[in-house]
Amino acid sequence: MTHSSGTDPTMGEMVIVGSMALDSVKTPFGAVDRVAGGAAVYAAMAASVLAPPRVVGVIGDDFPDETLATLRERGVDLSGVERVPGGKSFYWSGVYDYSLGERDSLVTELNVFADWRPVLPEAYRSSRYCFLANIQPQVQLSVLDQLQDTCFVMCDTMNYWIEHEREALDQVLSRVDLALLNDAEVRQLADTPNLAQAADAVLEMGPKWVVIKKGEYGAALVARDEYFSIPSYPLPNVVDPTGAGDSFAGGMIGLLARHDDCCSRELRRAVAFGTVIASACVEDFSLGGLERLGNGELRRRYDELREIVRFEAMEWEGLV
Amino acid sequence: MTHSSGTDPTMGEMVIVGSMALDSVKTPFGAVDRVAGGAAVYAAMAASVLAPPRVVGVIGDDFPDETLATLRERGVDLSGVERVPGGKSFYWSGVYDYSLGERDSLVTELNVFADWRPVLPEAYRSSRYCFLANIQPQVQLSVLDQLQDTCFVMCDTMNYWIEHEREALDQVLSRVDLALLNDAEVRQLADTPNLAQAADAVLEMGPKWVVIKKGEYGAALVARDEYFSIPSYPLPNVVDPTGAGDSFAGGMIGLLARHDDCCSRELRRAVAFGTVIASACVEDFSLGGLERLGNGELRRRYDELREIVRFEAMEWEGLV
Repeated sequence: MTHSSGTDPTMGEMVIVGSMALDSVKTPFGAVDRVAGGAAVYAAMAASVLAPPRVVGVIGDDFPDETLATLRERGVDLSGVERVPGGKSFYWSGVYDYSLGERDSLVTELNVFADWRPVLPEAYRSSRYCFLANIQPQVQLSVLDQLQDTCFVMCDTMNYWIEHEREALDQVLSRVDLALLNDAEVRQLADTPNLAQAADAVLEMGPKWVVIKKGEYGAALVARDEYFSIPSYPLPNVVDPTGAGDSFAGGMIGLLARHDDCCSRELRRAVAFGTVIASACVEDFSLGGLERLGNGELRRRYDELREIVRFEAMEWEGLV
Repeated sequence: MTHSSGTDPTMGEMVIVGSMALDSVKTPFGAVDRVAGGAAVYAAMAASVLAPPRVVGVIGDDFPDETLATLRERGVDLSGVERVPGGKSFYWSGVYDYSLGERDSLVTELNVFADWRPVLPEAYRSSRYCFLANIQPQVQLSVLDQLQDTCFVMCDTMNYWIEHEREALDQVLSRVDLALLNDAEVRQLADTPNLAQAADAVLEMGPKWVVIKKGEYGAALVARDEYFSIPSYPLPNVVDPTGAGDSFAGGMIGLLARHDDCCSRELRRAVAFGTVIASACVEDFSLGGLERLGNGELRRRYDELREIVRFEAMEWEGLV
């Protein structure tokens, strides 16, 4: 993998804020114990294919040095990562079902993540692109307060914050450009089962764009006057879905930053690119799939995805 | 609605075989009692937009004359429909959940459908296109035995036959060109949760093509060397999903028959057309949505679906 050189003069600076974790994961295809994970790590790995992200996160002594070295080799700026001496990193353990469609969380230990209040290095504050991964909405707000001159912020969240921190989350949604949610979260936020209605309701909460992640069924990008939807990249061997959504987000923000553009044309490409890079993530445990993904394979899958959705216009003779 | 004139010289003859029913349906948006339904009725209504289908089915005295009249007005040939004097039509009753994603069947009365052994009128036997809707596989086989010189047969089935009539179903699958299944049926047939692997396994059973219906998540068309996938047409007001899959199938077979072509290009268009016509079906109970669908709206949705999946090629500078 050769990451982008970062010398593109049009490139916008990008910051990713979120968890850096150790995960223990069991799927029908194997199990791993205390491997590198966390939303910011997956997103930074994915984004680094396109442009060098800045990362804001917190880790303990136990976070693997090799992962930090891998990220640095890919051009990731880790000066916003706080290492707490004597602390333990965020830890998550989960088990996936036979279809990989459902998972049970067995253990969630916040550890150093619990009282973390991210402080952005001075140089980060003018980042033009920002991905706020799933964190407590109050923490997302404190990051928003530190940003100056951003042109595009996207945020993730989860069912827990929708249920328990709705007020703060509503403030976040009113201040971001794009909300990245899975289909269940969109329905929960809007309290309606119809996804088209629910997405419209989320747009009313503030963001100009909503991206709906549908797992193996693909993703949709919704705005008031726009609807884009594509299937996922078909894979015969999915090993571990952990990190897919964060890789997707990293691919999105990486593309926007690389092209320094957040128009509808670039957002469509970003969703497609996120789809492709997420497909590599789920082919292995932890960061293995993203690490191994070469640029040739990335290009091949992107182009194949365009072909997958291609169908021709109709001649409508006799059906006026 | 102006149906096609049937005068296109390239048009292939088409036959649809399946249930003609009375349905009682309850959804969160209302309820209807003993309205016209059944796979062959939905499929014929949908197909008739494009080309005049021949229908093979069986009804009792209770099947509504207005529905038969509507079908005839749309050019549907009903000479293969047997009316059993004193008999009662197939009856189904079901209730959908809040999300319309799940349904419970309350009553299924086969009535005249129970001992029906379809006999194709002589003129039907040379039909070039055939849709075998979900019926007992032995009955599907008897129809296949009566067909001569067909160029394209697609079949539907259901979980019950996969479980209880596997041997006959395997024979059907070995003799059709396309198997139309929902995602759960594909997984059940192949006994594997991964949809890409499962579709490949179904292809090994005989058909050259598999179409996977994913409900609100869209549809995929799979062959050994081809994969096509599109989302569903987004709808803010879904009222009743009954008949969506059969409308989809009718739209598909109608397009193939109209263009008398079953190449990959036409099959992709057929899946897109099926998607669009199914979107009209679910906007009302019974046949209301299909009856009201005008050609202008149909064209608009088809063209919009092409726009929905459109994203541009990437410039890959620096990512060789």
